Amino acid sequence: MNKFIKAEILAVGTELLMGQIANTNAQYISGRLPEVGIGVYYHTVVGDNPSRLKECLSLAIKRADIVIMTGGLGPTKDDLTKETISEFFGRKLVLHQESLQKIEDFFKKLNRDMTENNKKQAYLPEGSLVIENNNGTAPGCIIEDGQKVVVMLPGPPKEMRPMFDKTVMDYFSKKAKFKIVSRFVRIFGIGESAMEEKIIDIIDRQTNPTIAPYAKDGEVTLRITAMCNNDKEGEELITPVIDEIKNRLGDTVYSVDNKSLEEVVGELLIKNNISISFAESCTGGLLSSKITDIPGISSVFAGSMVTYSNDVKARNLGVSEETLKTHGAVSSSTAKEMAVNIRRIMNTRLGLSITGIAGPGGATESKPVGLVYVALADENDVVCRKLNLLGDRNKIRNNTVLNALDMIRRYILQNCV
Amino acid sequence: MNKFIKAEILAVGTELLMGQIANTNAQYISGRLPEVGIGVYYHTVVGDNPSRLKECLSLAIKRADIVIMTGGLGPTKDDLTKETISEFFGRKLVLHQESLQKIEDFFKKLNRDMTENNKKQAYLPEGSLVIENNNGTAPGCIIEDGQKVVVMLPGPPKEMRPMFDKTVMDYFSKKAKFKIVSRFVRIFGIGESAMEEKIIDIIDRQTNPTIAPYAKDGEVTLRITAMCNNDKEGEELITPVIDEIKNRLGDTVYSVDNKSLEEVVGELLIKNNISISFAESCTGGLLSSKITDIPGISSVFAGSMVTYSNDVKARNLGVSEETLKTHGAVSSSTAKEMAVNIRRIMNTRLGLSITGIAGPGGATESKPVGLVYVALADENDVVCRKLNLLGDRNKIRNNTVLNALDMIRRYILQNCV
Repeated sequence: MNKFIKAEILAVGTELLMGQIANTNAQYISGRLPEVGIGVYYHTVVGDNPSRLKECLSLAIKRADIVIMTGGLGPTKDDLTKETISEFFGRKLVLHQESLQKIEDFFKKLNRDMTENNKKQAYLPEGSLVIENNNGTAPGCIIEDGQKVVVMLPGPPKEMRPMFDKTVMDYFSKKAKFKIVSRFVRIFGIGESAMEEKIIDIIDRQTNPTIAPYAKDGEVTLRITAMCNNDKEGEELITPVIDEIKNRLGDTVYSVDNKSLEEVVGELLIKNNISISFAESCTGGLLSSKITDIPGISSVFAGSMVTYSNDVKARNLGVSEETLKTHGAVSSSTAKEMAVNIRRIMNTRLGLSITGIAGPGGATESKPVGLVYVALADENDVVCRKLNLLGDRNKIRNNTVLNALDMIRRYILQNCV
Repeated sequence: MNKFIKAEILAVGTELLMGQIANTNAQYISGRLPEVGIGVYYHTVVGDNPSRLKECLSLAIKRADIVIMTGGLGPTKDDLTKETISEFFGRKLVLHQESLQKIEDFFKKLNRDMTENNKKQAYLPEGSLVIENNNGTAPGCIIEDGQKVVVMLPGPPKEMRPMFDKTVMDYFSKKAKFKIVSRFVRIFGIGESAMEEKIIDIIDRQTNPTIAPYAKDGEVTLRITAMCNNDKEGEELITPVIDEIKNRLGDTVYSVDNKSLEEVVGELLIKNNISISFAESCTGGLLSSKITDIPGISSVFAGSMVTYSNDVKARNLGVSEETLKTHGAVSSSTAKEMAVNIRRIMNTRLGLSITGIAGPGGATESKPVGLVYVALADENDVVCRKLNLLGDRNKIRNNTVLNALDMIRRYILQNCV
């Protein structure tokens, strides 16, 4: 088995360096290249400046076998990628007749006049393979120079992606000597370091596949990556490792297919035909909006009430004035009444409620920012979890939603599957 | 006036090179550094590999004055940034007692045991300035080495951003020789090119401040940027330009302080003490969750109902079976009944409703994906807007929320201010 072919992604564009857009092209290309045995070792972003671009290209060609460039192929004076690269390789820019025809047709279709600077886009470095652009005017190209390959693609993702998916992936898959297959194991309810302690020996002893953990927004993900000759071989390498991880981490593992927690919960609800409704206070509808991200959820999600004021909690959701007075709106008693009542009002099998203090205001000595109660009611019972969350309003609200989803997930796994 | 100080942003993390996440940290930092006279010339991403990291750092220090590093400060074995940087600068890692205390407190508050590998995060290069992390366990630091400055920040944006905004921006603004002041004019209800046509002469004649338009997620923003010696001078340069823009674009300008539409609407509701409630169908609580992002909104936002199923629209929100049968759930008649009823049920001055087809399923020949009705009811009347939106489910839902917010904004400006 050969070693990885090394790639660098070199993006050209001052708008990236000004922070106007994120480099999502690099993300996209990086996610796909391993499928054809190419590993991305570096991303670089440089502005629309010929001398800095030349330096970056020179370095990229030195440290990588393949350089994928995005951006700077447009019609304006700022767009210098092609000119710089031609100079670098000592190749003339020659008119590509088919590309010129395509550009002319493009403008005809839009009923616009083609300006002179658009012609410039039909010139490509001599001896390069042309990559057709069916969603814009700038074609891309592949330049082979000795053992090195440089690919030039336009910057707009809507043009770049189809060109990359079709022509570039085809080109490299024909040359590929091996494949990289990745699976993502997603985990909730255990911290990154506690998780690592439980599986550190597996991580350490693995060489193929490898295991890499990372934490994001209160969740932990493990990336399992195998080097292999085909998908089947990849699966055979990865499956026993995932089984062992599930064995160690138990039901904190919620997905082995890189699904989000709301996708997993949505699918569990739909598959088991469990209707549900929510009563949300401090999350203000965030849980509802997450679950309705899932297409098809309408078969089980009836609806919810966002009961932000105490008045609405009492009058519309029927939480007793007595409970609100004695225990307060942020209490286990209120959460439980909310869950029981929303279930009845919406006529669903499960009712889930959230009440808490997301901050920055609203805290008292006994009820700090981050105190949240989540309650879940079914036909027989209602249970409540007390959370003490850290962070700002946004983080507390997001983390509350994850905890609520996880509570539903565990309920279904224990009671319905 | 001095020239820009050169910065490079060096992100460490195999998850970036695998395409699991986009480098939004680089985008964020790049957007802010110009305010303190620092220009970003390069972004680099490298994996969790000490020798490649060292090479990248060495290059970054050579070609830039300031290197901002993100990622690789976590507790796991993969997290090697600090170790590598310490070695590079020949500085010992020393225990920072306060950081250790903070990490211990963090785990105490979460009621979790602190594992041994978390201690590692409290070690920082000797002689560095510590950057407190109030949203996670890994502190950052600033290393001054001759004329060069290296800043290390954790990778998770929710931790990185507050640390950067507070400590790092403070640190550099004290050293800045000139200032870049930016103001953002936010616009809704006019397309980018139509907007540009109305102000192209202003854009073309400006040199200081400059005006740069950009479109994102259905909104248009103008960035007005002045190079100046202090805030007051910046304001004096920028204010007349903003006044002229407002003059030309009228009430499509909703903020000159870079406030989001939900912030502007939230503040208008609070200031004018106008109570409101929502009935959401296809947006599934997204509007409610946006408005409850605004601290203090509880004084005017009573709550909402997410009426996802027809059953809930009829039984709980009181939309007549007749209307649902004759016109369907996605119709102006249903939207109007929803708005009138939620207003009455929640006992608020205004009631707003949303019903539509966000896709991918649910479309019919006469009701395509993207057809959405938004209705607004007050004590006298109810008005309804029909929208035909483009894009995927996510884009349609987001764009619907913007349109609903803008409808509330215009209502208040016309009737209440």
